[in-house]
Amino acid sequence: MTEQKLRIIPLGGLGEVGKNMMALEYANDIIIIDAGLMFPKQEMLGVDLVIPDISYLIERKTKLKGMIITHGHEDHIGALPYILRQLNLPIYSTKLTQGLISVKLKERRWKGKVTLKTIQPGAKFTLGCFGIEFFSVCHSIPDSVGLIIQTPIGIIIHSGDFKLDYTPVDGKTTNLNRLAQLEAQGVLLLLSDSTYSELRGYTPSERVVGETLDRIMTEAPGRVIIATFASLISRIQQVIDAAAKHQRRVFVTGRSMKDIVRMASELGYINIPPGILGNPNELHQLPRNQVVILATGSQGEPTSALVRIANRDHKQVHIVSGDTVVISATPIPGNEALVNRTVDNLFRQGAQVIYEKLEQVHVHGHGSQEELKLLLNLVKPKFFIPIHGEYRQLSLHAKLAENMGIPKNNIFVLEDGDVLELGRKTGKVVSKLPMGNIYVDGLVVSNLDNMVLRDRKVLSQDGIIAVTIVIDKKEGRLIGKPNIASRGFIDAKEGEALVEKGQDLLITALKQDQGHPTEREAINAKVRNVLAKFLYTETRRRPMIVPITIEV
Amino acid sequence: MTEQKLRIIPLGGLGEVGKNMMALEYANDIIIIDAGLMFPKQEMLGVDLVIPDISYLIERKTKLKGMIITHGHEDHIGALPYILRQLNLPIYSTKLTQGLISVKLKERRWKGKVTLKTIQPGAKFTLGCFGIEFFSVCHSIPDSVGLIIQTPIGIIIHSGDFKLDYTPVDGKTTNLNRLAQLEAQGVLLLLSDSTYSELRGYTPSERVVGETLDRIMTEAPGRVIIATFASLISRIQQVIDAAAKHQRRVFVTGRSMKDIVRMASELGYINIPPGILGNPNELHQLPRNQVVILATGSQGEPTSALVRIANRDHKQVHIVSGDTVVISATPIPGNEALVNRTVDNLFRQGAQVIYEKLEQVHVHGHGSQEELKLLLNLVKPKFFIPIHGEYRQLSLHAKLAENMGIPKNNIFVLEDGDVLELGRKTGKVVSKLPMGNIYVDGLVVSNLDNMVLRDRKVLSQDGIIAVTIVIDKKEGRLIGKPNIASRGFIDAKEGEALVEKGQDLLITALKQDQGHPTEREAINAKVRNVLAKFLYTETRRRPMIVPITIEV
Repeated sequence: MTEQKLRIIPLGGLGEVGKNMMALEYANDIIIIDAGLMFPKQEMLGVDLVIPDISYLIERKTKLKGMIITHGHEDHIGALPYILRQLNLPIYSTKLTQGLISVKLKERRWKGKVTLKTIQPGAKFTLGCFGIEFFSVCHSIPDSVGLIIQTPIGIIIHSGDFKLDYTPVDGKTTNLNRLAQLEAQGVLLLLSDSTYSELRGYTPSERVVGETLDRIMTEAPGRVIIATFASLISRIQQVIDAAAKHQRRVFVTGRSMKDIVRMASELGYINIPPGILGNPNELHQLPRNQVVILATGSQGEPTSALVRIANRDHKQVHIVSGDTVVISATPIPGNEALVNRTVDNLFRQGAQVIYEKLEQVHVHGHGSQEELKLLLNLVKPKFFIPIHGEYRQLSLHAKLAENMGIPKNNIFVLEDGDVLELGRKTGKVVSKLPMGNIYVDGLVVSNLDNMVLRDRKVLSQDGIIAVTIVIDKKEGRLIGKPNIASRGFIDAKEGEALVEKGQDLLITALKQDQGHPTEREAINAKVRNVLAKFLYTETRRRPMIVPITIEV
Repeated sequence: MTEQKLRIIPLGGLGEVGKNMMALEYANDIIIIDAGLMFPKQEMLGVDLVIPDISYLIERKTKLKGMIITHGHEDHIGALPYILRQLNLPIYSTKLTQGLISVKLKERRWKGKVTLKTIQPGAKFTLGCFGIEFFSVCHSIPDSVGLIIQTPIGIIIHSGDFKLDYTPVDGKTTNLNRLAQLEAQGVLLLLSDSTYSELRGYTPSERVVGETLDRIMTEAPGRVIIATFASLISRIQQVIDAAAKHQRRVFVTGRSMKDIVRMASELGYINIPPGILGNPNELHQLPRNQVVILATGSQGEPTSALVRIANRDHKQVHIVSGDTVVISATPIPGNEALVNRTVDNLFRQGAQVIYEKLEQVHVHGHGSQEELKLLLNLVKPKFFIPIHGEYRQLSLHAKLAENMGIPKNNIFVLEDGDVLELGRKTGKVVSKLPMGNIYVDGLVVSNLDNMVLRDRKVLSQDGIIAVTIVIDKKEGRLIGKPNIASRGFIDAKEGEALVEKGQDLLITALKQDQGHPTEREAINAKVRNVLAKFLYTETRRRPMIVPITIEV
């Protein structure tokens, strides 16, 4: 009898960050961990969002037992509004995560029913043959958890996103004790966060930022404007605490910041002393050194509060001399230019701006190498899979594990779509799912054929030329001049001369065929060739040429 | 009698990095410092290069006395092939810089005459009323200089791009002694490099990289593949030195790397011991631990040697187990994604990859805060202008100077196009030139009307729909169905249904006008409105709609 294997299938987040999702399958049961989205890469022109390809799950609907969400960040919950349309499964998460999921579903106008189950860390529940227990981890959002999963072939530990912070702002440390207990029972597999496997040492405690904020508020001669991620609730708490200490009132600006401060405070995840929040009409009455403004826009998002302030486009807040602006975040890869532009504009307005390069106004939410090693050492798993990272980060994490004594054969650097079959003794990648990117593009959710993205690329570089040719149906004779319309190609001024020359060339070329009716395709090919050659010679550019032949 | 003023006009590189250029004007004389290019920002879709706007200089051609180039980087010499077409001035530079200018002009097929004058550091020459002397500075390319400019109203020091390196690989330190002498005479104005004004402390010596390379070659079990900037000649020298020490042969791959190694070695700027360079057919005969491959591609450039290696697309070099790849560079802002992708692919091929985040395999070529302070302290200028930097970097450099005692009124944070008039006692920005970006777009050099870039943006996001309507000239009757061609908008599959519906809507809308001939513009507006509304409702996208109305 062959041993029944456990299948582990990353559907997002391995080899490319974002849109985290993983399936565990054993016999007739599948559970899903996380359902995140990814913001489009630069080459995904015009795309709004990218979500995981769940074809594999849709083909196995009857096996699906539920979805587990480790924490409330977009890259772990953002695909839910789209995935629920096809897979309406119960969702298991902690309380704050559930609150954030509800906000998200409302935002995306999810009207259907959904079962949201709140699970406390330490409580156990069962999905099919899987026994599941959450354990607390520190991360840049409260109520984050890792997973202890009892499977028929052994214990699996999934770290979620984590760091070790022995002095977290909310007092909840990563539950290392629970993990240490499991080691005694023997852990089959550890799946661990690789996001910061490139960084040596330890990630500093969130408290370090509190100390910097405290110093800034001491020294700032006027208002202190602080931008951070709305979901970075511990950071917001520290801003409030520092403001309270320095007798400053806090004014919140930016929709998502207001929403989350309200929700987190209602659910008890943020502690706002009475009288500390100012209301808008007090903003200009208080002395400036009694004011803190908490704003969205730490990523330079074009419509955010901070960017509007930087562009002198904010209704209530204009920069004045003596203002100090703190960007308490790190730019997410791809956002550097937006953030830099915002900082430049704030300096232009006369603010002093303090950002990550200048002071420790931000710390990461993921563990660095020493923390990753500590976890590996504590858990001592038989098998290891680095998760949540670009390929290089997974590779470096794998190397760490190998250096700590896990045999190379027991370490699996997987990428999205790899199907790993794991037994008690060995594991093997048995196949690779054909995975496409699923794009959310306005109302359309599809795996956009590559043609559309390729066309957008060409259009964005050299523009387009539409050439309309009217042909006499009977005689194949060209009627009138070809009509040439261009967009995004060249200056109107320079373009005019080119268009005229192009028309003449086309007329000459098409006249040769006159009298014997020609296939439309042949005409189109001729138009394309003649014009492409001419334009390349004249401009060294290759605009897209769209011939439209009309017979009348 | 009013005092004659000195005009200082940054034409590029202040407030936005790249395309460095500055004009100094006194009475009937203008000199130009540097003539660089900028690589396009993300939003400059399809643009090849950006160069300074020299309208101000063209209007004052008779005053121009010459161009001075501080060193051979693209952002200081790259605009020359374009600017020489309009301003053929003598160019003054050091020997290596001149070599690089010649290479550049040849590359861009410059066929005209140009006067290139070699100037040694320490030698003096005169351009109109300006007396000029070069002084050596350390930077990431040899033969870099700063400028000492005697003007009728006092001494100006222009730092060029610089760092302080007391153990430079070529033995040429920044000439602080000469600057100290000038302080005794009194320096009117210092213009100083702000590129790394955000960084505390000192920039490490280039030697530090040599030590890392030495260790890597000691430990690497197989080949060592090193990618760096072709112009980083000291780095190349250190690779050669380390290879020689470890009895490894060096194989050079990548066109620009080969060209520069040859040129620098001919001019005596690189020292290659005999027998150290391997020729291609030896590459596969030598034991792998006797091989070093020096490659282009440190920025992830798609056609570079390293990227071809990473994609298994290089003719001679395929990654094998035991290969170590070193990216001895930092990604230039905007190139991060390309570099990361290259590193990921190299890991996928099985290489060990060492890059800046993991080891000190790169150091910057610009001075950090302590070096900037040292220069300010040594020179003790009356006036100060931070140069070469984004606005935030200029602001921070200005703040450093203010903290060191230069009065705020004597510090000028300028941006491109600002016209500063400086006297012996005071200075003032008197006007701002209307500066546009000059784009090189294939063979076209122009200030592309913004319309073209705006169109490319729309095209890149939502694509285009060309609608051709044929109208009977006499009766204003629609002939046949409207022809709808779309590119970059939506999947062919989903698009078909939309096109059919759209055609029907247009037919209905246009029938209302039938019988009474309508203005072409009115028909086009109707087509645009009907279709835009329909497509937005169906898809939430706004493709560009181009109506083409043809009367027959």
